[in-house]
Amino acid sequence: MSDAQTSQRPTVLVIHGPNLNMLGQREPEIYGTMTLAEINARLVARARALGAEVVAFQSNTEGALIDFLQAEAAAAVGIIINAGGLTHTSVSLRDAVAGTGKPAIEVHLSNIYAREPFRHTSLIAPVCRGQICGLGWRGYLFALEALLTANE
Amino acid sequence: MSDAQTSQRPTVLVIHGPNLNMLGQREPEIYGTMTLAEINARLVARARALGAEVVAFQSNTEGALIDFLQAEAAAAVGIIINAGGLTHTSVSLRDAVAGTGKPAIEVHLSNIYAREPFRHTSLIAPVCRGQICGLGWRGYLFALEALLTANE
Amino acid sequence: MSDAQTSQRPTVLVIHGPNLNMLGQREPEIYGTMTLAEINARLVARARALGAEVVAFQSNTEGALIDFLQAEAAAAVGIIINAGGLTHTSVSLRDAVAGTGKPAIEVHLSNIYAREPFRHTSLIAPVCRGQICGLGWRGYLFALEALLTANE
Amino acid sequence: MSDAQTSQRPTVLVIHGPNLNMLGQREPEIYGTMTLAEINARLVARARALGAEVVAFQSNTEGALIDFLQAEAAAAVGIIINAGGLTHTSVSLRDAVAGTGKPAIEVHLSNIYAREPFRHTSLIAPVCRGQICGLGWRGYLFALEALLTANE
Amino acid sequence: MSDAQTSQRPTVLVIHGPNLNMLGQREPEIYGTMTLAEINARLVARARALGAEVVAFQSNTEGALIDFLQAEAAAAVGIIINAGGLTHTSVSLRDAVAGTGKPAIEVHLSNIYAREPFRHTSLIAPVCRGQICGLGWRGYLFALEALLTANE
Amino acid sequence: MSDAQTSQRPTVLVIHGPNLNMLGQREPEIYGTMTLAEINARLVARARALGAEVVAFQSNTEGALIDFLQAEAAAAVGIIINAGGLTHTSVSLRDAVAGTGKPAIEVHLSNIYAREPFRHTSLIAPVCRGQICGLGWRGYLFALEALLTANE
Amino acid sequence: MSDAQTSQRPTVLVIHGPNLNMLGQREPEIYGTMTLAEINARLVARARALGAEVVAFQSNTEGALIDFLQAEAAAAVGIIINAGGLTHTSVSLRDAVAGTGKPAIEVHLSNIYAREPFRHTSLIAPVCRGQICGLGWRGYLFALEALLTANE
Amino acid sequence: MSDAQTSQRPTVLVIHGPNLNMLGQREPEIYGTMTLAEINARLVARARALGAEVVAFQSNTEGALIDFLQAEAAAAVGIIINAGGLTHTSVSLRDAVAGTGKPAIEVHLSNIYAREPFRHTSLIAPVCRGQICGLGWRGYLFALEALLTANE
Amino acid sequence: MSDAQTSQRPTVLVIHGPNLNMLGQREPEIYGTMTLAEINARLVARARALGAEVVAFQSNTEGALIDFLQAEAAAAVGIIINAGGLTHTSVSLRDAVAGTGKPAIEVHLSNIYAREPFRHTSLIAPVCRGQICGLGWRGYLFALEALLTANE
Amino acid sequence: MSDAQTSQRPTVLVIHGPNLNMLGQREPEIYGTMTLAEINARLVARARALGAEVVAFQSNTEGALIDFLQAEAAAAVGIIINAGGLTHTSVSLRDAVAGTGKPAIEVHLSNIYAREPFRHTSLIAPVCRGQICGLGWRGYLFALEALLTANE
Amino acid sequence: MSDAQTSQRPTVLVIHGPNLNMLGQREPEIYGTMTLAEINARLVARARALGAEVVAFQSNTEGALIDFLQAEAAAAVGIIINAGGLTHTSVSLRDAVAGTGKPAIEVHLSNIYAREPFRHTSLIAPVCRGQICGLGWRGYLFALEALLTANE
Amino acid sequence: MSDAQTSQRPTVLVIHGPNLNMLGQREPEIYGTMTLAEINARLVARARALGAEVVAFQSNTEGALIDFLQAEAAAAVGIIINAGGLTHTSVSLRDAVAGTGKPAIEVHLSNIYAREPFRHTSLIAPVCRGQICGLGWRGYLFALEALLTANE
Repeated sequence: MSDAQTSQRPTVLVIHGPNLNMLGQREPEIYGTMTLAEINARLVARARALGAEVVAFQSNTEGALIDFLQAEAAAAVGIIINAGGLTHTSVSLRDAVAGTGKPAIEVHLSNIYAREPFRHTSLIAPVCRGQICGLGWRGYLFALEALLTANE
Repeated sequence: MSDAQTSQRPTVLVIHGPNLNMLGQREPEIYGTMTLAEINARLVARARALGAEVVAFQSNTEGALIDFLQAEAAAAVGIIINAGGLTHTSVSLRDAVAGTGKPAIEVHLSNIYAREPFRHTSLIAPVCRGQICGLGWRGYLFALEALLTANE
Repeated sequence: MSDAQTSQRPTVLVIHGPNLNMLGQREPEIYGTMTLAEINARLVARARALGAEVVAFQSNTEGALIDFLQAEAAAAVGIIINAGGLTHTSVSLRDAVAGTGKPAIEVHLSNIYAREPFRHTSLIAPVCRGQICGLGWRGYLFALEALLTANE
Repeated sequence: MSDAQTSQRPTVLVIHGPNLNMLGQREPEIYGTMTLAEINARLVARARALGAEVVAFQSNTEGALIDFLQAEAAAAVGIIINAGGLTHTSVSLRDAVAGTGKPAIEVHLSNIYAREPFRHTSLIAPVCRGQICGLGWRGYLFALEALLTANE
Repeated sequence: MSDAQTSQRPTVLVIHGPNLNMLGQREPEIYGTMTLAEINARLVARARALGAEVVAFQSNTEGALIDFLQAEAAAAVGIIINAGGLTHTSVSLRDAVAGTGKPAIEVHLSNIYAREPFRHTSLIAPVCRGQICGLGWRGYLFALEALLTANE
Repeated sequence: MSDAQTSQRPTVLVIHGPNLNMLGQREPEIYGTMTLAEINARLVARARALGAEVVAFQSNTEGALIDFLQAEAAAAVGIIINAGGLTHTSVSLRDAVAGTGKPAIEVHLSNIYAREPFRHTSLIAPVCRGQICGLGWRGYLFALEALLTANE
Repeated sequence: MSDAQTSQRPTVLVIHGPNLNMLGQREPEIYGTMTLAEINARLVARARALGAEVVAFQSNTEGALIDFLQAEAAAAVGIIINAGGLTHTSVSLRDAVAGTGKPAIEVHLSNIYAREPFRHTSLIAPVCRGQICGLGWRGYLFALEALLTANE
Repeated sequence: MSDAQTSQRPTVLVIHGPNLNMLGQREPEIYGTMTLAEINARLVARARALGAEVVAFQSNTEGALIDFLQAEAAAAVGIIINAGGLTHTSVSLRDAVAGTGKPAIEVHLSNIYAREPFRHTSLIAPVCRGQICGLGWRGYLFALEALLTANE
Repeated sequence: MSDAQTSQRPTVLVIHGPNLNMLGQREPEIYGTMTLAEINARLVARARALGAEVVAFQSNTEGALIDFLQAEAAAAVGIIINAGGLTHTSVSLRDAVAGTGKPAIEVHLSNIYAREPFRHTSLIAPVCRGQICGLGWRGYLFALEALLTANE
Repeated sequence: MSDAQTSQRPTVLVIHGPNLNMLGQREPEIYGTMTLAEINARLVARARALGAEVVAFQSNTEGALIDFLQAEAAAAVGIIINAGGLTHTSVSLRDAVAGTGKPAIEVHLSNIYAREPFRHTSLIAPVCRGQICGLGWRGYLFALEALLTANE
Repeated sequence: MSDAQTSQRPTVLVIHGPNLNMLGQREPEIYGTMTLAEINARLVARARALGAEVVAFQSNTEGALIDFLQAEAAAAVGIIINAGGLTHTSVSLRDAVAGTGKPAIEVHLSNIYAREPFRHTSLIAPVCRGQICGLGWRGYLFALEALLTANE
Repeated sequence: MSDAQTSQRPTVLVIHGPNLNMLGQREPEIYGTMTLAEINARLVARARALGAEVVAFQSNTEGALIDFLQAEAAAAVGIIINAGGLTHTSVSLRDAVAGTGKPAIEVHLSNIYAREPFRHTSLIAPVCRGQICGLGWRGYLFALEALLTANE
């Protein structure tokens, strides 16, 4: 039984796509110097401060991300997703997000609209509630806050 | 040794792509209420009535679908494939289907031509014998029948 | 008074567009060797086996096809349509099909997605329930069966 | 000898393209509940009030519409044309309108610019004096008035 | 307090965009010889004959047109808009028209479909009830009549 | 039994599409002053001089042109086709030409490449042996000669 | 001398483009029910809590927005901009933002990627640090926080 | 009465679009270090040396630029226009320039063809006599000279 | 002094572009087995039979073809041009043909519309009187005849 | 600890994407008859002759290829990559290659520029040092040599 | 040794592309009546007045223009280039200009933005400092002055 | 008689297009510091080591490159071609390479896929056996080896 399923408190899923496990090492001039573990830790801390839980998952494999979404989303109150390079190419991940029926917010560390043209189009964004990009690790925290306080 | 390899009767492979394991749960207004297990059961029953076997496989991972095709297609007489979201994005799965040299029929539960524009183009269809879409679970049975009776 | 109007049993209209009267003669490597009369005969036989009737109509003239649809569709339970070359160019025929309010299934003998690019887009498909292509004459029978058993 | 040719009073041709004979029956939420006969009657009445005649013609066949234009336009002072689905696809009808050398006004019952993208382009409009769309049956009357009073 | 707000009779707003104040002076071979004041006078006269009022406004500034719409539309029964060159470029004006929730009709003096390609697309048209173009000053009167008699 | 079928001498079909019956009357600055009857007479004369026959057919209806081709092509040695406005829009006529299996030459009176962009693409040309345009009525005679002397 | 210039505390400019003054009234199903004054009040409160000031400005006129940016940006530490419909069309506003040399964050109340295609492209985004959309009024507060805490 | 209207000597209008008032301050690596006042002073001096006058006008508002053109162009012999970001987006300004009927020359300080793709297309250029770009402030002087000596 | 300049009889220039000197050797399944010398000989013979002269020129160099046209066209009555691969890419050759002010006919041995898409567009055709393609060497003779008999 | 990490000699990673494990079996007319094991063996032998090591990895799963690159690239001197069908679709794999910061050379067995249009664009190539295609298994050896001798 | 190499004074190269040798003869309504020799003479005179030299070169052959640039540019201070029809098609000439490393200014006699669409894109402009078009022969003189006084 | 024709040993042609004669001088950060003579010398040496000859030819003129190919290819066993800027624009050179019927390999010194978009498409590549780019002078040697050892 997963953490999400046993949690008493509202849970937000955080999906990290390909290459995001390399944060802090890979091209820090674009993606910053903070590691994924540090971002997850900040998310967990902020969630707990808001009376909630975060279950984070990273994979380089599209199918594994979909497996996770299918298994965990039913017990969650929302989804934060940075699909990495899959953002621009994965109809399957889009369908998986839409299939959960849960509110989702897309996050990108860098400003994808100031980069190569193929990064300007997100297949995920249209099935999300909103998108935050270019604000680095803070973007994840804003997304978390937005999901947990939307009904206030 | 796989089921397909040991079967005495002609075998048809049925490939289900990402998110199709959620049938019956996910967006039933688009995809219907029948589960994948029920569809597979109907396929098996129909195949047996026609003196054949069906080996069905679902995965959310493109690579696993290709692995399956590579392992099983040599012993099969044909392929039914609903690649889900990969339909519109996967050159690799297309190449895997073409590489088998076996007749294939593409199936979609919904009418992809009445949905978003990015669903109107299939990379799989050009290497198949034909395509059936919008007829729900019946589409699989028609495809099966078409593969098994093509030479009558 | 047309056959469709007098029939007691549920009637399915079968619309054959331009050049389909030449089946069996024209480019058999693409379209097969069966004539249109034979396909119609199989449709009639299958329909009767299912307790229904088929009224088939072929014309090379877009307007005649529309005239037929307007006159006959009110008394029919569904439509099978292979609009031939009009598939890719006729907004008027699309509007006529949509205007009937009856379920329609588009059929093509060949796999239009493996042919010239201008054959990859159907103006008819978005107003149909589904599409079958590349399965030769069997495609018509599957369409008939789909229309007559949709509520089973 | 046609009505248009014998009329002493100025005559306006009204061309109704495919499916417009179904007005009042087909998709009334888009096209309204008035029948084509009623629209024609209003046109005739208004024309007579303005000292003119209307000769209306409907066909589902592109060629028949062209035949009518070729036969009647020489004796007419102007043309009102709603080419239906042919609006977006018929170079031949465009050429026929242009070939008359008479002023023409294109009319559409619905606002074609608020519908599917393929309805946003008219091949007929560039050879007309103007276009009226989205104003229902009144559009025809405005077009008639515009043709008959252009030189006032 | 504006005229529109005090009027007892139904009021139609008439919005004239950039350069339309030059009517009669600028390129009369395209736009005709009648001045904007004359057009407005005809609109006022026709409105009064129909028991209504017209409040017309011209500006070369997109923002001023939006200001006017925001201030006056609540008290109006409909909008006639010729946005001039803004027709093809202004999302903001489109949003302002849509934001009023009032029926609007787009008018162009010339046939924009017979001119440069960039004039063939209107951002305003899809949020209007309909469009009239190429009929000169009469187009405004037809639009007025359409707005005031739509429920007859 | 048609003329083509009874002729002892080789027969060339000449297909004239929509509006070509108006030659000599319609837009002579584009299409010239010679009538279609005169062009046909010159074709007949030249054919006889070459020991052959010409059977010419004009219609404004796509379907009628296809009907003619289907009925007459089997007995003919080649086809000359000027499809008029259908050149740019008719997949069905293209299929009918290709379906005859006979050599065809496309002719246009005017230089279609010096006119509107939509006239620059011919759906018929790719299934013909060649194309002649811009040479007026002489183009037909050259096409006739090309068909009748190709094997010299 | 403007408020921004005299403030001792760091000031953030908030730019609201066309139609945003209608918030709470216009299409609340898209834009929410909170008025612009309420959003500005929340921004002011949050800024003060963070030891900063907010200077907000709304106009329906592109030029007025540019005037404001030119006058105030030198004394500000950052910019929050929701350019409304100008987002998709204004090179001039983009140039004005870039010309300030100050960090900017683009905000949209609605998810522009789930709306009409012309709203998917922002000319402003590439010259901003990041973008937040679809999170309603909270998006402004997140942007403010991002600007004021970026160096923490 | 404006300066242009009272001048005895031939007057050239100089139109500076959005953000050009920031010259010398904004992005000097692209636009140079000379201020707009200095450029205008050089233009005035050169014009006087050539027996002419210059009336320069800058605004960030499209409508104000059009107002100026409408008011002043009748008394001028020509127009120099650098529309800034409006170059690529303003149909209205284009129409205003064309509406003057006076010769105009477009100037850009930077080489717009070596910058972002959206800067490569000018809506103003086609209605001008010519264009000068990339030559900095000298471009204005060349344009002035070209306008004043065109008939020599 | 060139042959063309001294000839008493009307002269037609024949321009053969790159690779046409290899005729008969290169890809005969596309271009036929007749050599360029043989084609030229036939042209000369036919021209003489018609009381005219032909001056033929082949080069693989665009500039040499232009040089020839500039030097010889003034004394010629018309131009036959097969620009080979330059057909699709040479604005300069197009300008040279247009600059002569003489009637020109474009010829291609193969049917360029049945080959790769980049061969479907000719930059030369719009400045010619007409085009002949796909008729092999006969196309040159037809072009010659058309030029010499156009005024009969 | 992987082989790459323990090797004393410089190591080159060789990445084989989907379907390349089928080499020698699948479509040998396109991809040749040599198996992947044989290619790898040749690479190992050549690498050793040059004083280096090769670590080869094949997977049909995008994520597994990324996992391998992330784990092994730090210890390698360069990368040879044939991403198979992922070449044209995988932003994630591109990002993984770029993220290594190591020189990479793309290899394709067949000439991708002589195949279907969707194979003409590589998302991987722009982040590589170069590309070799169409030279069969030799391409891998050339790539190896290029990586190991680049500084000679 | 060329003139440019021996000159003591700064030398500007002037490159005239295909067909410019025909100036004054060819289409004077587009290109004016002044000959190339006259333009060159004016350039020489102006250069001398500015203490410089001009070396002008015209060819109809792309390669000859590149040869000239390669031979002469090292000794020159700048380049004026009107590449004629090569402007829109020659990557090689662009590369040659860029390869010189010298400042270049593109000149066109006519306003290329008011002509056919294929003339709107210059491959040369992005590697030049600027562009002057539509100002006739004066454009060359302005370009010369710009090159020789850029550092004043 | 050329060198290629007299050679007893197999000869490979090496074609260098425009600007490649400037290697070592022009933009060395892109193209490296080795001169063309040095590259040719390495090719000759390597060819001799493999029992073959190389005949290299450079020209800035498309036509001269075609002339060379036509004259020399018959006696050669293969072609190495770096067409420089003509790579992206020359249909004629493509046709010349294809016309030789000999195997060809395209080489580029730089990675054309990491440069401007117009360099991403090669007209030459589809008629070659393969392509090598981005490997500097070594690319030529690999191409030579590939041509000479293809049948081992």
